[in-house]
Amino acid sequence: MKQKINIVKVKNVKIGEGFCVIAGPCAVESEEQLFKTAKLIKKNINILRGGAYKPRSFPDKFQGLKEEGLIILKKVSEKLNIPTVTEVLDVRDVALISEFSDMLQIGARNMANYSLLKEVGKTRKPVLLKRGFGAKIDELLGAAEYILSEGNNQIVLCERGIRTFETSLRFTLDFAGAIYLKQKTNFPVIIDPSHATGNPSLIKPLVKAGIAAGLDGVMVEVHYNPKIAKCDAFQALTPKEFNEIFK
Amino acid sequence: MKQKINIVKVKNVKIGEGFCVIAGPCAVESEEQLFKTAKLIKKNINILRGGAYKPRSFPDKFQGLKEEGLIILKKVSEKLNIPTVTEVLDVRDVALISEFSDMLQIGARNMANYSLLKEVGKTRKPVLLKRGFGAKIDELLGAAEYILSEGNNQIVLCERGIRTFETSLRFTLDFAGAIYLKQKTNFPVIIDPSHATGNPSLIKPLVKAGIAAGLDGVMVEVHYNPKIAKCDAFQALTPKEFNEIFK
Amino acid sequence: MKQKINIVKVKNVKIGEGFCVIAGPCAVESEEQLFKTAKLIKKNINILRGGAYKPRSFPDKFQGLKEEGLIILKKVSEKLNIPTVTEVLDVRDVALISEFSDMLQIGARNMANYSLLKEVGKTRKPVLLKRGFGAKIDELLGAAEYILSEGNNQIVLCERGIRTFETSLRFTLDFAGAIYLKQKTNFPVIIDPSHATGNPSLIKPLVKAGIAAGLDGVMVEVHYNPKIAKCDAFQALTPKEFNEIFK
Amino acid sequence: MKQKINIVKVKNVKIGEGFCVIAGPCAVESEEQLFKTAKLIKKNINILRGGAYKPRSFPDKFQGLKEEGLIILKKVSEKLNIPTVTEVLDVRDVALISEFSDMLQIGARNMANYSLLKEVGKTRKPVLLKRGFGAKIDELLGAAEYILSEGNNQIVLCERGIRTFETSLRFTLDFAGAIYLKQKTNFPVIIDPSHATGNPSLIKPLVKAGIAAGLDGVMVEVHYNPKIAKCDAFQALTPKEFNEIFK
Repeated sequence: MKQKINIVKVKNVKIGEGFCVIAGPCAVESEEQLFKTAKLIKKNINILRGGAYKPRSFPDKFQGLKEEGLIILKKVSEKLNIPTVTEVLDVRDVALISEFSDMLQIGARNMANYSLLKEVGKTRKPVLLKRGFGAKIDELLGAAEYILSEGNNQIVLCERGIRTFETSLRFTLDFAGAIYLKQKTNFPVIIDPSHATGNPSLIKPLVKAGIAAGLDGVMVEVHYNPKIAKCDAFQALTPKEFNEIFK
Repeated sequence: MKQKINIVKVKNVKIGEGFCVIAGPCAVESEEQLFKTAKLIKKNINILRGGAYKPRSFPDKFQGLKEEGLIILKKVSEKLNIPTVTEVLDVRDVALISEFSDMLQIGARNMANYSLLKEVGKTRKPVLLKRGFGAKIDELLGAAEYILSEGNNQIVLCERGIRTFETSLRFTLDFAGAIYLKQKTNFPVIIDPSHATGNPSLIKPLVKAGIAAGLDGVMVEVHYNPKIAKCDAFQALTPKEFNEIFK
Repeated sequence: MKQKINIVKVKNVKIGEGFCVIAGPCAVESEEQLFKTAKLIKKNINILRGGAYKPRSFPDKFQGLKEEGLIILKKVSEKLNIPTVTEVLDVRDVALISEFSDMLQIGARNMANYSLLKEVGKTRKPVLLKRGFGAKIDELLGAAEYILSEGNNQIVLCERGIRTFETSLRFTLDFAGAIYLKQKTNFPVIIDPSHATGNPSLIKPLVKAGIAAGLDGVMVEVHYNPKIAKCDAFQALTPKEFNEIFK
Repeated sequence: MKQKINIVKVKNVKIGEGFCVIAGPCAVESEEQLFKTAKLIKKNINILRGGAYKPRSFPDKFQGLKEEGLIILKKVSEKLNIPTVTEVLDVRDVALISEFSDMLQIGARNMANYSLLKEVGKTRKPVLLKRGFGAKIDELLGAAEYILSEGNNQIVLCERGIRTFETSLRFTLDFAGAIYLKQKTNFPVIIDPSHATGNPSLIKPLVKAGIAAGLDGVMVEVHYNPKIAKCDAFQALTPKEFNEIFK
């Protein structure tokens, strides 16, 4: 009944085979910050994340290091020999970011930015497509079809929490929805418990649950010193906490 | 950091030690139906569920066998030597149901029926308290305090899905919320993937996830022949499907 | 197409003819408090509200004056010659409350407490049925059918806000849903902007909108001195603010 | 207390003075369709709407006539001497669309597409900014600040319904939220009952409610023959139904 999974290759990493761990800081803040963090968690991750362009709710918040962030990301990637994923916010940046990162991320806020989806669809870069926090599962699949329609089938879907009335946690992780998504599609499906919950103490049990449920991976925010992180400081794990999960 | 769990005893079963499996049909429909179902799943369950009083959204829907259902429940419980849980809807039925069932269930619709909570709080029966589908986690804890305030601390909390905009599944299982609940309270916490998703194909991965995440148990709807079930027919597992999970 | 409205009579007041104004404090706190408040707003209200039994999320919060509150409610009602509505929480209190109040309120938390609905259905008292904050419109109609099924058709439906992800206001008033409800049923439909928004500055525009949209009335919380109110203090209007709306 | 409203000028129309009516078809389908529709409703509208670029959940759905649609829009606008608003989806189209339309619309799906917001902020065109269906009121204000930050203060905010668990109507119109928004900001605030409810029978009462509540306008979908509309056919009014509202 279940169709064959569509393996997505990010350099030497095959998402859809085994459980893929993507981790790193919310934003690239400096070479030191990214290198320190990445080095400490290297043994337990498959792909390094780090945002150079940050979509913030208000224009006066830190918007990312942009080009400078991309350069740092590539440098650290090469030093440590680990592939990277970073978010793209603007159709005009797709070509540039494609040169610097191994995988392109479409964030929750841009899941229905169809121009951007088509633009990343024109590249042959693997795409990490996050579900919008107000989007239905069917609409996430529609977003994937926009990328597909341009000829790019290297798509990984990511459940990162939806908006509900519950306020104890940052969002409500639609964990059952992620499993359902795997049944409906042949794209790999991962979860992002960091953004979904905003609560570091829930990452470990959710990673274990994700593995047990047969999901394809996880994305986790880690910062070598969360207290000084420039965005989402409260939700990042320390490298020590992170490595403890995968012991 | 984590406080000691408050073990809840339902006859010989200790909820909070190991992973507790509660299963059975949505409603008690006949002695044959309950006995057949229970016998087929006996080896894999700790507690048998079956509703004698059913809270239905419309008065013309099957409302349960009531007293007759209670008698059947007790009979099957004794024949198979397995403890039972059944729902109580009315303060005036608490004493009667307490005679026939080993555990009292407060359903989602009555989570904020404080008269009923206080009434089951006056008994010394263990209580399975389901989260309302429109209730916040704090309010679930408030409901537990109403039971506690009358001197009954034999409480198990159950996450059974909340109402959100997502319509692919019946409700949205707040899986991360259930883990969070375990961190905040010392009551055992279980999940009900049957009601939460309304989708039998999701039960197995969610049971596995619940075990991996350290939750205390699961409640699953099983019917020897789901097609003829008088309520929630679409979401019940067959005994064969159910037993397959626990192989 | 639109059916005839089912007029609900609360003593001399006919809900469903014109725009009915129900107002008063959240809870009856003392004879002085209720009398003072009621006297100041008398000219602009049709029915006086005041809770004697209060459903609070935690057992250590003020639960109402109970029987004493009922006695005060009746006394003030007779002194000022104004009908009253008060909430009933427990099937065992229905008879008593029916002696003291002219209309029975089923609150949001008990909308799916079907035992209670049937019990008020057995009386011939008019019923103010509030929509649960997690309930669908169809379920509100199902709740009304439980009351109807016992022979009582004196039902007024009240939209009081639903739970959504938006947190600027206390709940999200389903204003369009209230209008839709009027199209689907012949029961009068009113709104409760006090509970829905928790924001006194929104009451006036919402009352005006309700009148313009053809709704049947409004329920508003007023306290002669909101600052000392024992519940929901932040959302009550002063009598002066209230009277200003109806100038 | 209330600050002065920031009047937004769309040619001769001043949004923020009186009640502004924006109406027209969901999509521009042909010159005949737009002209016919616009002519029939001209006397009751201030601004004509019509989408040339349509953001659809799936790539195989009608995506709008694009440049051809813009040409038709301008032609009809000039023939009937009525200003227009149309949606922009892509930063690369902002300059072109600005030549053809008098006001730029940011749709719900792109409310958090900050690149696009900044791009329309660089023009001096008035902007109709729709709230995302999963966005909080604060985030809508954050989106407006992105436009403002580039020097464009000609912004009108539009509440068009949010996603909730209620499924009777397409979305839940946050009517109280729209009033609250007017209290918090000096931008004009309008509502879009067509998209919010998807139910033509609710438009008239919601328009009347919007006027009574002091909102600044309304956006309504009208098609000379809704049955043959290429998108959202079920929610458009006929010109006759539309004109009947404003009699």
